[in-house]
Amino acid sequence: MSKATDFSERRAQLNDIVMKYAGLNTKRFLNLDTQIYKDGALPEKTKEMLGLVASLVLRCDDCISYHLLNCQQQGVTSEELEEILAVGLIVGGSITIPHLRRALELWDELPPASSHPR
Amino acid sequence: MSKATDFSERRAQLNDIVMKYAGLNTKRFLNLDTQIYKDGALPEKTKEMLGLVASLVLRCDDCISYHLLNCQQQGVTSEELEEILAVGLIVGGSITIPHLRRALELWDELPPASSHPR
Amino acid sequence: MSKATDFSERRAQLNDIVMKYAGLNTKRFLNLDTQIYKDGALPEKTKEMLGLVASLVLRCDDCISYHLLNCQQQGVTSEELEEILAVGLIVGGSITIPHLRRALELWDELPPASSHPR
Amino acid sequence: MSKATDFSERRAQLNDIVMKYAGLNTKRFLNLDTQIYKDGALPEKTKEMLGLVASLVLRCDDCISYHLLNCQQQGVTSEELEEILAVGLIVGGSITIPHLRRALELWDELPPASSHPR
Amino acid sequence: MSKATDFSERRAQLNDIVMKYAGLNTKRFLNLDTQIYKDGALPEKTKEMLGLVASLVLRCDDCISYHLLNCQQQGVTSEELEEILAVGLIVGGSITIPHLRRALELWDELPPASSHPR
Amino acid sequence: MSKATDFSERRAQLNDIVMKYAGLNTKRFLNLDTQIYKDGALPEKTKEMLGLVASLVLRCDDCISYHLLNCQQQGVTSEELEEILAVGLIVGGSITIPHLRRALELWDELPPASSHPR
Repeated sequence: MSKATDFSERRAQLNDIVMKYAGLNTKRFLNLDTQIYKDGALPEKTKEMLGLVASLVLRCDDCISYHLLNCQQQGVTSEELEEILAVGLIVGGSITIPHLRRALELWDELPPASSHPR
Repeated sequence: MSKATDFSERRAQLNDIVMKYAGLNTKRFLNLDTQIYKDGALPEKTKEMLGLVASLVLRCDDCISYHLLNCQQQGVTSEELEEILAVGLIVGGSITIPHLRRALELWDELPPASSHPR
Repeated sequence: MSKATDFSERRAQLNDIVMKYAGLNTKRFLNLDTQIYKDGALPEKTKEMLGLVASLVLRCDDCISYHLLNCQQQGVTSEELEEILAVGLIVGGSITIPHLRRALELWDELPPASSHPR
Repeated sequence: MSKATDFSERRAQLNDIVMKYAGLNTKRFLNLDTQIYKDGALPEKTKEMLGLVASLVLRCDDCISYHLLNCQQQGVTSEELEEILAVGLIVGGSITIPHLRRALELWDELPPASSHPR
Repeated sequence: MSKATDFSERRAQLNDIVMKYAGLNTKRFLNLDTQIYKDGALPEKTKEMLGLVASLVLRCDDCISYHLLNCQQQGVTSEELEEILAVGLIVGGSITIPHLRRALELWDELPPASSHPR
Repeated sequence: MSKATDFSERRAQLNDIVMKYAGLNTKRFLNLDTQIYKDGALPEKTKEMLGLVASLVLRCDDCISYHLLNCQQQGVTSEELEEILAVGLIVGGSITIPHLRRALELWDELPPASSHPR
């Protein structure tokens, strides 16, 4: 099983547990977390790039993986990805490097985006 | 072996290594870290809830697990837990979600508190 | 003008600017941020204490001031406050001390809670 | 003097002090910090938006002000700005709100971008 | 009044307020915070440098000012300071730059260490 | 295979992936990240100690492991290490304890430095 599939399945499994306990406010937060990345004045692609760089400087591997997969679905290229990560690297410093490494490891295993209908 | 037992045993094993190297100041810090959660003007239960939300917004899985198990011992209910996590979620943002997921995964496997004399 | 009044007036003035630009999702977030502290399985007083310790370990003076004033309205005593701050101090370390100092400076100037109808 | 001018002049004054002490490595870092935002696979406008959201979730007012002014120069609209901030808000949580307020206060005082050749 | 004197006097004034409210555990923490920097296997000078870089990457101006003044008392030179800050800059990233600027502004105003008996 | 070897091999493997995607700016950052720790006004040993404490308070296990191994190569003793970690512990708080535990677990398995030519 690929790293991407493994990540997505584990995430879905844990989300089931979250929904078992989540109250109304938590559900509203999770819903809002989906809405905010939808097309608006900025396209979803740009918002996913924003989510990715924010996740990198805050150093959360799961959040990075999530936005990385979404970026790929949105057609972000390897060259664009590299520049997003470079902004995160200069802002967040060398402490982000281990996360940058794991992000590129995940990216490196992804098949071309066109074969991945969401 | 349950996640909770696994966590507690690994923690005890590593603490043995810490005590092998710890100097007086480190020992004082660790002792203080125990004292601060004892009953005072606020009951231990409230302090463990404070420790849990602080651990969630600072995004430390081990610290979350530790205070989560203590919260259960103090009689925190699933409904109370959900509201503690909701405060951490709104303060700390979506970057806390992966930690919230793992916290609830651990909680979900715990037997009822009454069968867990400390 | 007292520090507390100064803080609250400045906050209200800036919130007017926020509302001038805020879209639907931002408004939903801000509304949720109010709802989450309401009485539920845990009383508002406990939730404000959770918000305070989370703000202290994340080291945000404005957030600390906001929850500190709410804690006072909820009847938190100086002895309780000191123990909330002590949990934040041990979890978050000496880096929180400057914020703890400013929190107590604000607290020290507050009149008794009973004279402060919200 | 406007907030934007005040910020930029103070920044320039402090940068003079930095350059008085900076060694080769520090100068290289500062130069790299400029290069990374230049047009590449992603346009400078997008990179400044990335820098802004990263600064918001890391909660640095000066960094937010710097990228906010650059975003304006790059033609970012108020609607786009609001959505960048909303992504930062959901990722970083309510702890970012005081920074979001000050960002919009600065933005609110800016004249239209077209009258601001860089 | 110099920035250094202003900082130290304000700090002393706020510490008086802290001691008015501090319980035993808080006092123990503050005492430990002093003990840990004393000469041991590592000299106080090295420990103050460690405290400074930790404060820089955690981005706390007051903590930076405090350790900066102590570093000067310990005989840290401008060349050594620059290298401490460079380590903080590469580890912590550009988000630390505003703090680095203010650190050097404070340093730049300090008289030579020899005229500052502690 | 020892923890140290395992860490170093995994790190090298991921660095190969990073170099496959890295653009000029990322390469410059990584190069600078090496240069900054070289002997200068401060010896490499001191800089590695600074890198270690910065990594501890920022709570990055990989960064801690990296600087810990470098510290050992530079002849840092167990007593010196304990004091570096104690500074990180008091500055960063109990939230650093799980990282401190894992740092000492790695250290505890290392053979004496002299048998480890780099």
